[in-house]
Amino acid sequence: MINISQSTSTRPYLVRALHEWCTDNGFTPYVAVLVDETVQVPREYVNNGEIVLNVSFDATSGMQLSNEFIQFKARFGGVAREIVVPMGRVIAIYAKENGQGMAFPAPAPTPAGAAVDATAASDSPPEPPAGSPSNSTRPQLKRVK
Amino acid sequence: MINISQSTSTRPYLVRALHEWCTDNGFTPYVAVLVDETVQVPREYVNNGEIVLNVSFDATSGMQLSNEFIQFKARFGGVAREIVVPMGRVIAIYAKENGQGMAFPAPAPTPAGAAVDATAASDSPPEPPAGSPSNSTRPQLKRVK
Repeated sequence: MINISQSTSTRPYLVRALHEWCTDNGFTPYVAVLVDETVQVPREYVNNGEIVLNVSFDATSGMQLSNEFIQFKARFGGVAREIVVPMGRVIAIYAKENGQGMAFPAPAPTPAGAAVDATAASDSPPEPPAGSPSNSTRPQLKRVK
Repeated sequence: MINISQSTSTRPYLVRALHEWCTDNGFTPYVAVLVDETVQVPREYVNNGEIVLNVSFDATSGMQLSNEFIQFKARFGGVAREIVVPMGRVIAIYAKENGQGMAFPAPAPTPAGAAVDATAASDSPPEPPAGSPSNSTRPQLKRVK
């Protein structure tokens, strides 16, 4: 997967796209996050190492969806919290109402205390292409709904 | 797939996302299009019912990526042509340089002369999720790179 390391991750672009799709359709965008020490979320809402966040404009303020982070303020149990999620830790974004969305490969586990490069760590081997044309000019295509 | 028919297609959002990713990374975005009578392209460049179009800003003018169409002007063999591609006919978008991108299900064949609803026709059954969590709140997630 040499090429991927030479380019930025598509993940933030896809996260923004699905966030926009949800918003345009009146759906509530949820993101599932694989929590580690680089993720700033209320730990009391983390379950099995994951947290699901409502990232709708209605539920948040100051939403920023950059290539590096999802960052916003939201209230948890009435308390305002500042949330920071590195894009590489986002493992899914989907509409609360119907579950439609997209999942991403989970980042590989990192040694405790090691510096985390979540984007690079997410370069797990691709799945075999399903039904993709045997065209050598596009070997890395992933088929989605 | 009842839910999908109640919402707009994610395809234009994903096409725009990958187009932006290509552009930001200095790659040349190509789209593969399944041609039918709703697709306005130079027929002499259609191969096996498909055409691959360079949709970079460098190669086109007046590029529009709406929820319904990809529309732009480009030169083919020195001749300026107006290109119109319904989003539902886009079967892939990828970087020319490394093939990274995304493929979409091909629209189902339509009877000759029938009105084409490419978006609805693309609602083929989803692939089985690979490695996705057994969480009933997100049954329609598609896993991608």
